[in-house]
Amino acid sequence: MAGNSFGTLFKLTTFGESHGVAIGGILEGCPSGIALNMDAIKAEMDRRKPGQSAIVTQRKEEDKVEFFSGIFEGKTTGTPIGFAIYNSNQKSADYSHIKDSYRPSHADYVYDQKYGFRDYRGGGRSSARETASRVVAGAIAKQFLKEIKINAFVSQVGSISLNIPYQELDLSQTEANPVRCPDKTTAAAMEAHIREVRKEGDTIGGIITGVIQNVPVGLGEPVFDKLHAQLGKAMLSINAVKGFEYGSGFEGVKMKGSEHNDAFNTDGTTKTNNSGGVQGGISNGMDIFFNIAFKPVATIIQPYETIDKKGDIVQTKGKGRHDPCVVPRAVPIVEAMAALVLADFMLLNRVIKS
Amino acid sequence: MAGNSFGTLFKLTTFGESHGVAIGGILEGCPSGIALNMDAIKAEMDRRKPGQSAIVTQRKEEDKVEFFSGIFEGKTTGTPIGFAIYNSNQKSADYSHIKDSYRPSHADYVYDQKYGFRDYRGGGRSSARETASRVVAGAIAKQFLKEIKINAFVSQVGSISLNIPYQELDLSQTEANPVRCPDKTTAAAMEAHIREVRKEGDTIGGIITGVIQNVPVGLGEPVFDKLHAQLGKAMLSINAVKGFEYGSGFEGVKMKGSEHNDAFNTDGTTKTNNSGGVQGGISNGMDIFFNIAFKPVATIIQPYETIDKKGDIVQTKGKGRHDPCVVPRAVPIVEAMAALVLADFMLLNRVIKS
Amino acid sequence: MAGNSFGTLFKLTTFGESHGVAIGGILEGCPSGIALNMDAIKAEMDRRKPGQSAIVTQRKEEDKVEFFSGIFEGKTTGTPIGFAIYNSNQKSADYSHIKDSYRPSHADYVYDQKYGFRDYRGGGRSSARETASRVVAGAIAKQFLKEIKINAFVSQVGSISLNIPYQELDLSQTEANPVRCPDKTTAAAMEAHIREVRKEGDTIGGIITGVIQNVPVGLGEPVFDKLHAQLGKAMLSINAVKGFEYGSGFEGVKMKGSEHNDAFNTDGTTKTNNSGGVQGGISNGMDIFFNIAFKPVATIIQPYETIDKKGDIVQTKGKGRHDPCVVPRAVPIVEAMAALVLADFMLLNRVIKS
Amino acid sequence: MAGNSFGTLFKLTTFGESHGVAIGGILEGCPSGIALNMDAIKAEMDRRKPGQSAIVTQRKEEDKVEFFSGIFEGKTTGTPIGFAIYNSNQKSADYSHIKDSYRPSHADYVYDQKYGFRDYRGGGRSSARETASRVVAGAIAKQFLKEIKINAFVSQVGSISLNIPYQELDLSQTEANPVRCPDKTTAAAMEAHIREVRKEGDTIGGIITGVIQNVPVGLGEPVFDKLHAQLGKAMLSINAVKGFEYGSGFEGVKMKGSEHNDAFNTDGTTKTNNSGGVQGGISNGMDIFFNIAFKPVATIIQPYETIDKKGDIVQTKGKGRHDPCVVPRAVPIVEAMAALVLADFMLLNRVIKS
Repeated sequence: MAGNSFGTLFKLTTFGESHGVAIGGILEGCPSGIALNMDAIKAEMDRRKPGQSAIVTQRKEEDKVEFFSGIFEGKTTGTPIGFAIYNSNQKSADYSHIKDSYRPSHADYVYDQKYGFRDYRGGGRSSARETASRVVAGAIAKQFLKEIKINAFVSQVGSISLNIPYQELDLSQTEANPVRCPDKTTAAAMEAHIREVRKEGDTIGGIITGVIQNVPVGLGEPVFDKLHAQLGKAMLSINAVKGFEYGSGFEGVKMKGSEHNDAFNTDGTTKTNNSGGVQGGISNGMDIFFNIAFKPVATIIQPYETIDKKGDIVQTKGKGRHDPCVVPRAVPIVEAMAALVLADFMLLNRVIKS
Repeated sequence: MAGNSFGTLFKLTTFGESHGVAIGGILEGCPSGIALNMDAIKAEMDRRKPGQSAIVTQRKEEDKVEFFSGIFEGKTTGTPIGFAIYNSNQKSADYSHIKDSYRPSHADYVYDQKYGFRDYRGGGRSSARETASRVVAGAIAKQFLKEIKINAFVSQVGSISLNIPYQELDLSQTEANPVRCPDKTTAAAMEAHIREVRKEGDTIGGIITGVIQNVPVGLGEPVFDKLHAQLGKAMLSINAVKGFEYGSGFEGVKMKGSEHNDAFNTDGTTKTNNSGGVQGGISNGMDIFFNIAFKPVATIIQPYETIDKKGDIVQTKGKGRHDPCVVPRAVPIVEAMAALVLADFMLLNRVIKS
Repeated sequence: MAGNSFGTLFKLTTFGESHGVAIGGILEGCPSGIALNMDAIKAEMDRRKPGQSAIVTQRKEEDKVEFFSGIFEGKTTGTPIGFAIYNSNQKSADYSHIKDSYRPSHADYVYDQKYGFRDYRGGGRSSARETASRVVAGAIAKQFLKEIKINAFVSQVGSISLNIPYQELDLSQTEANPVRCPDKTTAAAMEAHIREVRKEGDTIGGIITGVIQNVPVGLGEPVFDKLHAQLGKAMLSINAVKGFEYGSGFEGVKMKGSEHNDAFNTDGTTKTNNSGGVQGGISNGMDIFFNIAFKPVATIIQPYETIDKKGDIVQTKGKGRHDPCVVPRAVPIVEAMAALVLADFMLLNRVIKS
Repeated sequence: MAGNSFGTLFKLTTFGESHGVAIGGILEGCPSGIALNMDAIKAEMDRRKPGQSAIVTQRKEEDKVEFFSGIFEGKTTGTPIGFAIYNSNQKSADYSHIKDSYRPSHADYVYDQKYGFRDYRGGGRSSARETASRVVAGAIAKQFLKEIKINAFVSQVGSISLNIPYQELDLSQTEANPVRCPDKTTAAAMEAHIREVRKEGDTIGGIITGVIQNVPVGLGEPVFDKLHAQLGKAMLSINAVKGFEYGSGFEGVKMKGSEHNDAFNTDGTTKTNNSGGVQGGISNGMDIFFNIAFKPVATIIQPYETIDKKGDIVQTKGKGRHDPCVVPRAVPIVEAMAALVLADFMLLNRVIKS
């Protein structure tokens, strides 16, 4: 099985199940000599952690990262950075009801079919808990990339959509509310909607928008590893993601070439940015922006019918502490994956010029 | 530079510029003993080739594939399949006007910035001509996958959208018209729109829908190489693509979990398929379906202003024979990339069980 | 930086410095459903650990492996196996004398040049302590490979050579003495020589011979990933290794083709085995055997002259507890690397047949 | 099947059977802007080609390289360089006698077992003809590396050994005789021996020594992709190679640490070079030197007994035009593989420093 690594030179490999001993990873290729800001790493972890607000899962997980290697006297050494996050709050008893039956729209059934059996506790390897390791690596990548600004925010929850272009938003306000929508009014409506959905024992989907600024010209490796193709894969690899678009995206299909083309300024920047900062798979120095669709969380606290391993019908009901809407906590994950993509292309790009 | 290979075990590496001597590739990992149907390969090439109808580019390229290796007495040998397609119709003179200036929304500028200079003839490496090599490899992949049915079709041109679920369409009708939309009425409207746009010297975007059927349960390699993540990357790596969604996609964000969840039948299939055939990154045996957004082609036959290498403003005008809308010819490319993704996951999946 | 992973499908990635918090790794691709014998893993670790006999380093390191993931109810799940070995006995004070000067024939100088600085404590990433992670992964690989027998033993120490063909040795006697030479008389002479060398504060080189039996026909992936090429790389990646030969090896160059060719028996086996079990990079079912040359350990307990970071001459002397001869403890490392190579080719080979 | 690619960033993928339409490859990652000297490439091809002297195979193959891409106006563009060498002189009739029987110590049997059948003409994929593609790529790598000097020469044929250290040889004399041994007297003895062996219809083994000079400090990627490990794999992947050693090699095992250690000069160079230019897997700036053992060619022009596909004994006799000793023609192949290894590490090394 391949599949647990992301990146060519700046490369993250992760391990771990939600209710095993620990999750963690190895980050390779981080250049030497970077003085790591550990508080910044912790801050990213806190943005992702459960229990951070009233509208996310109330599980308590501290998500404390233990670094094993690759850092000496506070600086990266250029050798692999090994790390783990112990699963302190396992509560396996919560999950015994799913041992023998398959939850709809979860990965239980396919894991059993693919591997013959599974660690059924809380989703095991398919749990979004794995993304905590991505946030660790992404937080380090951000420190390597320091000139490049990576911001994500919630732009839609259910049918409540933020209809303001990102250029007109104050992205520093993203953290000012639990929904992580930088517009206060829209955030309040989104929050109210999430609370309502949760009350019903139900869940709701959403959209996260990402914006990457200050990107040097030249990142991306055609023809298969185009910047936006790798970015799309990165985002699609996050749990619950159903779609990715960048620049003009799906709306752009309605445009004519004469409207869609981005005319040049004399300095190589462009007057418009329908391209979304990428031409032919290579960054052109303009902002890279993109949208990511997240489905509603599959775990609902309502009675439902499903099948067990033998194919018999069983009646059951979701238990435990789950997110009514995944997008608020997914914002730092999106930023982390974007940082991993950019860091890798930065290293790959340096090797080109003879 | 990485970037010219796709796949881990069933792996295609391509080379070639649009106006160099030849384009081509090496396909590795194709199992031995497959009796290749050369007519089927040619048929796929013909679906992609220029000049096939009145609504595509009128360039004449025969796109004849020469196989160098990996095939003996009509069967694959398990060794790499090398092949080339000579660029018979180079007409370099057509492109001299773009030698020193940068076409808007083309890759001219970024290639120059990244590599220091570029083969400026007709887009060079960034030309969609490269996708002919993908179609060759995809046509072989289809023969390896024979149980699995892969179909793509045009579902939108500009604002003209096919609003019929794929299950209600007769996909065998896709080839019955030059637009490759299986619904005759919609196809006619799309064709008329493309003709109109071309008359203006303009271009228009579109959407291709893909459907993969008869997929075994278990394909896909979490957590980074999820089936839909790799499929998304494959599609986003095609020229002009701006977005990818599968299953419920962007519309799914508006749904509640109780609506979106796909309840099981007793045989492991599901009653609905909002998941789009993939759970947790692994195929569940249901149909995989997805949409791909294509921007309008950047080359327009209208006067426009742009910059030259020195950053000076120049007045110019598109020349040559270009597609007014890329989606009809992109249908076989989408199918080819889907076949490459599936073939690779088939091989990766076989190695799992001890 | 690439370089911390070995294998394509059965893949080990390691992290860790000798005096950091922990060393460890992630083993990907191990098939699901293998009931792991933890005692067998511990037994391999004990063969490698310091302090096991009077002729190896007297450092005390328990080398207890903590498994984080990929194992559920005693069986592999097919997901990545994360593990760590804490560095309990760090004693950093022992190494302060090498902080600012470069030990001859160690990696101190090149690490400083390559990365700008280094974790100078005990060799850091370049320490042979890293091989403990390989032994963990190799012990798991052995359990996957169970039909295949992998044995290594010491065949030379300094000029004392074991001149008996492996077929005439009882390889079960390898563990009967601290040198790990299966011939009692030669082992005694080797042991005496190591004791003598240690008394002088000096060190001595040696050769390990490996034998792999019961290998199925067909393993190895030409043309670059030939079985013996990957095996050679595996062995050359072990600390202190200076050479690798298999089958007739360096002696074979003196032979004529008529002597060297291995005539077939009617069942496809061969009458002789100068080929060493590999033809054209693919296993032929005969025993694979090979020799590995290890240089004398660079750390000697004698006064010597060297340079510091400024290039000034300094007088110094080795300290600490080091191996006078590396080969006895390297035997399980050689077996582990052989097991990783074979396990990966086993998985790669399964995917070939259509 | 993996196995047809070598390198991570500077990467060669080859295709082709000895008697198919063509052999060739794709070279990725060559930096842009290198003005290629095509005569230098041809010169390397001529050093490898059959029929170049009286002591090599008398087959006539022109080995003309056709470049397809990646070169524009005489310079590399940074895009993949595709190339092919047509198999003009196929003479398939020569090989019909080996269609149904297995030649001893050839890859016929294992290819049939692994893939189910094989292209039996002249060795197919397992033929050393594949190495012509490596020489093309290596000749380009040499032009990228221009500061680094890579020389190989024949140092042993059968039992006739060149016992002069490379430092005392004039390596410019390597091409002065058909054996490619830079010492005239030894070369004459070697040549006489090869003629004698050929007269008997027999073959003989040999050793090639390689020397790489002017290497910057810092190349190599521990812990698995150590410079010498990757170099060893490169050499072991060449047809007929049975062993690799570098620096003190197998002789070094007899030395004590106090003799073997290379004391530093104040500029970081060392007084001796038992290390062979590599410490801990990273180049230290001293000469890298190594020996490679080649077995005698398996094809002999004598009657012999073997088995056919059914396992029945058959009497046969080698035919065709074969090399009595492989080392003279293997010299440029060794240099090519060394160049590929160095070029890749050069690119990988540039990405380290933050």
